[in-house]
Amino acid sequence: MERQFEKELQDLRENLLKMGTLVEEAIANAVKSLVERDSELARRTIECDCQIDQMEVKLEEKAVKLLALRQPMARDLRFIIKSVKIIASLERIGDHAVNICERALELNKEPPLKPYIDIPRMASAAQMMLKEALDAFINEDTDLAFKVCHNDQIIDDLDDQILRELLTFMMGDPHTITRAVRIIQISKYLERIGDLATNIAESVIYVIDARDIRHGGYIKENPK
Amino acid sequence: MERQFEKELQDLRENLLKMGTLVEEAIANAVKSLVERDSELARRTIECDCQIDQMEVKLEEKAVKLLALRQPMARDLRFIIKSVKIIASLERIGDHAVNICERALELNKEPPLKPYIDIPRMASAAQMMLKEALDAFINEDTDLAFKVCHNDQIIDDLDDQILRELLTFMMGDPHTITRAVRIIQISKYLERIGDLATNIAESVIYVIDARDIRHGGYIKENPK
Repeated sequence: MERQFEKELQDLRENLLKMGTLVEEAIANAVKSLVERDSELARRTIECDCQIDQMEVKLEEKAVKLLALRQPMARDLRFIIKSVKIIASLERIGDHAVNICERALELNKEPPLKPYIDIPRMASAAQMMLKEALDAFINEDTDLAFKVCHNDQIIDDLDDQILRELLTFMMGDPHTITRAVRIIQISKYLERIGDLATNIAESVIYVIDARDIRHGGYIKENPK
Repeated sequence: MERQFEKELQDLRENLLKMGTLVEEAIANAVKSLVERDSELARRTIECDCQIDQMEVKLEEKAVKLLALRQPMARDLRFIIKSVKIIASLERIGDHAVNICERALELNKEPPLKPYIDIPRMASAAQMMLKEALDAFINEDTDLAFKVCHNDQIIDDLDDQILRELLTFMMGDPHTITRAVRIIQISKYLERIGDLATNIAESVIYVIDARDIRHGGYIKENPK
């Protein structure tokens, strides 16, 4: 019975990682479809989102069943509750990848405004945050989780920088306005993805330490 | 024991509604601070967000305790799991109210671009959706929950309309660009609030019907 439960928990963990990989790919493809002006890839990425949606429903169901049948306590209970929230965050990140594809489809119809430099940089940072948040989760690595929380600032700074640069562009040439607004939106979606990855990292710390660091409740100094 | 559990569930329900009321007020005050150019109100609303943050931590703790101590089954289990997700959504709506206040503080420093008409309309619709989603939750009213899901379209349409109007403004007069971009951002925050209220309504339907309507899983025809 104990071993069976451990196996079911492991299964939930692995499925969460699988869902995470799908979501990471969705972000990468969304930004690739923008940078390489590949509208076909954007459309395929939008279609793939239903896989992520289905995984959300399936994994949440698994988690609820575990709670109902196994009635876990303490750390296992916290792990399952936080899984439910991580699943919801992953699904939302998938939606933002779709939003990026929608803007890419619009942008790809018009001449390029300028080479994308900061957007791919921001996307890489967001993807890395998500990957590390999930790694921290699977390896119960709080140091890595703290690192993710701190790295969110990099994305916020890039978002500010992109906004400032594009405002200058628009003021210099009103023909760029529609395109610039769409790029500002993409930057905001990536910033939201960074926030959601931060939420996942906070969950990891809660599961392992039973400490709630949200809203300034706990700050660890000098994270790696 | 049974009665004590029922009392604790009722307590969780009432606290969720209280948190909902705080969040509704935050949206109302954020938009009021924008429309009436009241920066003092914007600052107060930002400060009040820590109350919402504290409620999130407290209520989630309550829900986890209920799961650990009472080991509820079936409908009660689903209710508690969905409460955890609703609490997270309410906290995020509170954050968006703060985002609106931040943009209002910036906009209030500059001359008004034009009277705000669609933004307050959108805010009212978002607030109503949130109120109805929570009412549906407390009264176990699936018809009302379906209505909320369908009303999300009104907000999405207003968001599109605001974007189109402001693009025209910016192209007509580049001096309006910075302000217009901030208003577009506010419109997006309100659109996200509508999405989060829709998520809450979907949760209600799941708790009561044990049907998952997310991602087109179940569509009721002709909702009231």
